[in-house]
Amino acid sequence: MPSLTFTKGHGTGNDFVLFTDPDGELTLTPEQITFLCDRHFGIGADGVIRAVRSRALPEGASVLAEEPAAEWFMDYWNADGTPAEMCGNGIRVYAHYLITEGLVTPERRDTLPIGTRAGVKDVLAGVSGYTVDLGRWRLTEEFLVAARGLHVPRPGQGIDLGNPHVVTALAADAKLDGLELNDAPTLDPAPESGANVEFVVPEEPLIKDGVARIRMRVHERGSGETLSCGTGTAAAALAFRYWGGEGMPNHWSVEVPGGRLAVRMFPTEEGEHVSLSGPAELVYRGTIELPE
Amino acid sequence: MPSLTFTKGHGTGNDFVLFTDPDGELTLTPEQITFLCDRHFGIGADGVIRAVRSRALPEGASVLAEEPAAEWFMDYWNADGTPAEMCGNGIRVYAHYLITEGLVTPERRDTLPIGTRAGVKDVLAGVSGYTVDLGRWRLTEEFLVAARGLHVPRPGQGIDLGNPHVVTALAADAKLDGLELNDAPTLDPAPESGANVEFVVPEEPLIKDGVARIRMRVHERGSGETLSCGTGTAAAALAFRYWGGEGMPNHWSVEVPGGRLAVRMFPTEEGEHVSLSGPAELVYRGTIELPE
Repeated sequence: MPSLTFTKGHGTGNDFVLFTDPDGELTLTPEQITFLCDRHFGIGADGVIRAVRSRALPEGASVLAEEPAAEWFMDYWNADGTPAEMCGNGIRVYAHYLITEGLVTPERRDTLPIGTRAGVKDVLAGVSGYTVDLGRWRLTEEFLVAARGLHVPRPGQGIDLGNPHVVTALAADAKLDGLELNDAPTLDPAPESGANVEFVVPEEPLIKDGVARIRMRVHERGSGETLSCGTGTAAAALAFRYWGGEGMPNHWSVEVPGGRLAVRMFPTEEGEHVSLSGPAELVYRGTIELPE
Repeated sequence: MPSLTFTKGHGTGNDFVLFTDPDGELTLTPEQITFLCDRHFGIGADGVIRAVRSRALPEGASVLAEEPAAEWFMDYWNADGTPAEMCGNGIRVYAHYLITEGLVTPERRDTLPIGTRAGVKDVLAGVSGYTVDLGRWRLTEEFLVAARGLHVPRPGQGIDLGNPHVVTALAADAKLDGLELNDAPTLDPAPESGANVEFVVPEEPLIKDGVARIRMRVHERGSGETLSCGTGTAAAALAFRYWGGEGMPNHWSVEVPGGRLAVRMFPTEEGEHVSLSGPAELVYRGTIELPE
């Protein structure tokens, strides 16, 4: 059995098994990924992140064409063994991992371009964590969302952030707390490759000191309910700002079960971008025998 | 921050963080234990087992008076930071750990006496796992058991196995599957220091080839629902045999969410003992910085 040296990390409780495979020699099977992510029989995580050089992966070619400095690719896998485009918490933890492991040169430690299946993402190291520019976003269609604990289906706003989200507003904390989100909510129409589903409630008052504040819970495709979902946090803030219309701020604070994240919308030459800021922690290192 | 080298192991999915502290120099705080057991922010486990010599602990004195060969003590802590008397899955994993780490001499590898807060337990290494003699047991009082997903409270039989259990029979698999056991069931009368609560259904037919077969789910004091509870498995078989009366066998097979365990009742000079047999796995090693 091959032996894997790994690091366990998390961003607001959204947790990952990370390992380094610079030349792309260790492609895990879906069975090995589900084993690693199993919280009782394996290590336990919401996903697996392989640190691999962009040039070692077919998906890396378009990344390097977009940004030659994007040396490292975030090869992200969900707990169920399926690949994912992006993970807003994962990329902060991944940037922290690359820096801690000495895999990036010092001049890249402030602004680090990272390859993902959703293109190149820029990560900035700050004093209280990392900020990732999630790039462009767009509203998609409306859905009808049904979930356990929700008495009647409610409308949900589709938002694309490189990965698909559907955001549903609820009126009160009690409704949010009463949801059972380990089972996937049902979406109508059903998106072809599924979606992450966020439920949000405003804090009281919504806006304080120029920052809008909301609470969120999330069901992640392929992982069940998680303590936090980075791109989901941004989607929730974007949907809420859209619903609120005129006068809504561009600074948002989103409380998730695992902590608090900041979302900011800002103009760029190619149109508005959205960024996500929050902590990234590396918790321990280990070695595990992989099943064949 | 002190660094802790640990091994993660499990028996039928009941999982543990194990570490070696022969001279009892590293007593973890409840906060450090809950951190280690946190499945997102720490390592994740149902409990922590410290491998410590019996002579290094006050609790070890009575153990060594009972059996001078019980060199090692299983210092077991629940995920919530409280100590526990015994753990039937934990002690198999602990025996496997002591042998794998070379902490016991070869002549002790077949029958290994281990000190616990519930006295000395003998563990036998076999071809397909380990068998632990859980020793004497006794019926205690009857309780009325209420749980989420149970429409009306049902009677439960108290059983003491060094730690307290309450076993409730259900009529059908669907009732067992419909329970929500992360919240502690309510017991009437309320036991002073709580109890582990097991729910069981018979397989169809109950007895096959001389072995009685049941399915079980469990809420463990201080840990919520677990995939398996060793002493709970024995309690479930003992309660079911008691209810079944004459003609019930002394060999039981108990399916838990994490796998299958064997329970056997057998006579000894001091009265009937009950034993538990099942697998023990060590999954990976790691190093973590402990919070102060």
